[in-house]
Amino acid sequence: MSGFDAMWSDLAPVGRHPATGGYRRYAWTRTDAALREWFCGEASERGLDVVPDRAGNLWAWTADPDAGRPGLVMGSHLDSVPDGGAFDGPLGVVSAFAALDLVRARGLSPRRPLGVVCSSDEEGARFGVACAGSRLLTGALDPDRARRLTDDDGTTLAEAVSAAGGDPGSLDRDDEALRRIGTFLELHVEQGRGLADGDAPVGIATAIRPHGRWRLDLPGRADHAGTTRLEDRRDPLLPLAAVIRAARDAAAAHGVLATVGKVLVTPNAVNAIPSAVTAWLDARGLPEAAVRAVVAEVGASGGIDPVEESWTPATVFDPELRDVVAAAAGGDRGPAPLLDTGAGHDAGILAAAGVPSAMLFVRNPTGVSHSPAEHAERDDCLAGVEALARAVEALV
Amino acid sequence: MSGFDAMWSDLAPVGRHPATGGYRRYAWTRTDAALREWFCGEASERGLDVVPDRAGNLWAWTADPDAGRPGLVMGSHLDSVPDGGAFDGPLGVVSAFAALDLVRARGLSPRRPLGVVCSSDEEGARFGVACAGSRLLTGALDPDRARRLTDDDGTTLAEAVSAAGGDPGSLDRDDEALRRIGTFLELHVEQGRGLADGDAPVGIATAIRPHGRWRLDLPGRADHAGTTRLEDRRDPLLPLAAVIRAARDAAAAHGVLATVGKVLVTPNAVNAIPSAVTAWLDARGLPEAAVRAVVAEVGASGGIDPVEESWTPATVFDPELRDVVAAAAGGDRGPAPLLDTGAGHDAGILAAAGVPSAMLFVRNPTGVSHSPAEHAERDDCLAGVEALARAVEALV
Repeated sequence: MSGFDAMWSDLAPVGRHPATGGYRRYAWTRTDAALREWFCGEASERGLDVVPDRAGNLWAWTADPDAGRPGLVMGSHLDSVPDGGAFDGPLGVVSAFAALDLVRARGLSPRRPLGVVCSSDEEGARFGVACAGSRLLTGALDPDRARRLTDDDGTTLAEAVSAAGGDPGSLDRDDEALRRIGTFLELHVEQGRGLADGDAPVGIATAIRPHGRWRLDLPGRADHAGTTRLEDRRDPLLPLAAVIRAARDAAAAHGVLATVGKVLVTPNAVNAIPSAVTAWLDARGLPEAAVRAVVAEVGASGGIDPVEESWTPATVFDPELRDVVAAAAGGDRGPAPLLDTGAGHDAGILAAAGVPSAMLFVRNPTGVSHSPAEHAERDDCLAGVEALARAVEALV
Repeated sequence: MSGFDAMWSDLAPVGRHPATGGYRRYAWTRTDAALREWFCGEASERGLDVVPDRAGNLWAWTADPDAGRPGLVMGSHLDSVPDGGAFDGPLGVVSAFAALDLVRARGLSPRRPLGVVCSSDEEGARFGVACAGSRLLTGALDPDRARRLTDDDGTTLAEAVSAAGGDPGSLDRDDEALRRIGTFLELHVEQGRGLADGDAPVGIATAIRPHGRWRLDLPGRADHAGTTRLEDRRDPLLPLAAVIRAARDAAAAHGVLATVGKVLVTPNAVNAIPSAVTAWLDARGLPEAAVRAVVAEVGASGGIDPVEESWTPATVFDPELRDVVAAAAGGDRGPAPLLDTGAGHDAGILAAAGVPSAMLFVRNPTGVSHSPAEHAERDDCLAGVEALARAVEALV
């Protein structure tokens, strides 16, 4: 049975881009299939039964979750953003297996089934919808809409599921699978510096701040860069410059986060004034009204109405569960510190669907995430495994 | 023998993109092969011998250009920028054949061979070097460098020439082909509004203004858009916004043109702060010092040194030839108006190599170019053919 370090080494080469050192693990690709195969292998080594749900998530169970009380599930996802880091997602899956090993090694006999989940398409890097697996599971994402989502090559999600050997027609919400989850614990590398300067290697989430993404369609008129007078131009890069600047300034003014991370320029030729630019705005924070104000100011700076592509209100995790997990995770040192986050997670989607859920964050010395430079120290990762195991012991 | 309208209709569907209505006619593709085949067919209908040179340009001759005095050549190119218009290039080739037909129909017996050229890869849309055919011909582009140029898919120019059935090893400067060109006349749609508000349908070029392109490498640090504090970010889109704004402001201040037309964002994900942005600056105008000042100001605004990818000094066309062509083109109305331009052309490359060259511009009512909306009225195009024929008559 592979321990933490062996599992970590097994995953290290899968989907790593040789030039950037970052991971390109996108949903329903060959790389994704290799990761899911790895998951099933680890489950099998531990005698767990893997049960897929109708949303494409994989659930590995120690015992029949339909026989008695709903189970306690740990886990996270294995997919990545483009050129993402090694920790965002996989740390939660590897730690879940390692914590299960610890719990069993200590001779605990849980009164509820224990499960490990590998959720599907959490980053939304390929089809544009984050937490697609958990949203489908809970009914927050309509299966017809999901099937029609396309990647940058024009492949639909339905076609991608087919190509991966699945049946896109059976994608649907899955109340039966949802009922099996009595409690959900997601461990994740912290994506920020909330723990970086403190003594605790592990913190517990209080809430996920409201977040959303908007599309900014900036119209222009194609023209020759070398001959068209400045006053005759309708150059969509000028409003692009304005919205990039406005996103930063408005975010600072309202105390929230706003980012333009993706830009498509048409036709994108050196000697042509672009005919159109599309940019995407990611905005998050509290209160919701501040986020809404930033989006409105960014749109106004570009002379357009932003198109809302997704919006997730604030998710507050179950305070009772949170306190039990914080006390168990902190051990003799007292309760682990509490912190909120601007990143969306499957635990947030499940919490919003009524599943008692908690999140454990492992210290990130630089706070860098969604980058090949994302990192957590090995000792902190092992402290995360210990905290997760203690939380399980406290809950079952 | 096809007249102007028939030739125009034959070319209309070739390489036209159904969604945008713009042309995607890139060098050494199947579309390019279809255009070259069309050229050879028109030459053959007129009893012209097509002689390729070592740079990939096609020369169609009425008589042996090596037998006596060097010839008089008309023509232009058939390739396009991405989603370009129908006129930029093809109008010059079609008008050359039509003018040759007019000259012959009037019973003129030229004392010099007449030629029509279809030059290769003028836009540089695929491999990034504009006027690649004429630069290779004259030795301004090193053949080894040319062979190593790559397109966005990583295909080298050498591989593309091979795939098109050519021999990349024979690409080279071609002094023999160059010696055959005693005079070069390039007719082109105007790419600006110099003629739009006047009475004359045709104008004559005095000079091509200095022009160049620079690469702007804007470094950043990949990070999570939803968790990284504003003050911890190194977001390369902020300097991008600054350089876009600075390009416009500095160009206006110095009375030249400057454009950012191409931008590559890495990794270009909605929820990731980009790790790097590369943008390209196109700047043109007189005097050269003004262009240099704009480039320096744009670089300073982004905190970087622009990397010069190409630079072409001012090209002044032979004033004596210019005046002969202007007088012939204007006819009874007096000399055609003179104007300069910011667009590079093969005629400029040949002029810089010592070939007496002139350019005729056909009125463009909106000035729009490098766009599906590029247009010239049919009457103005026919006036261009007439002007070209009269210039030939005056010169041979």
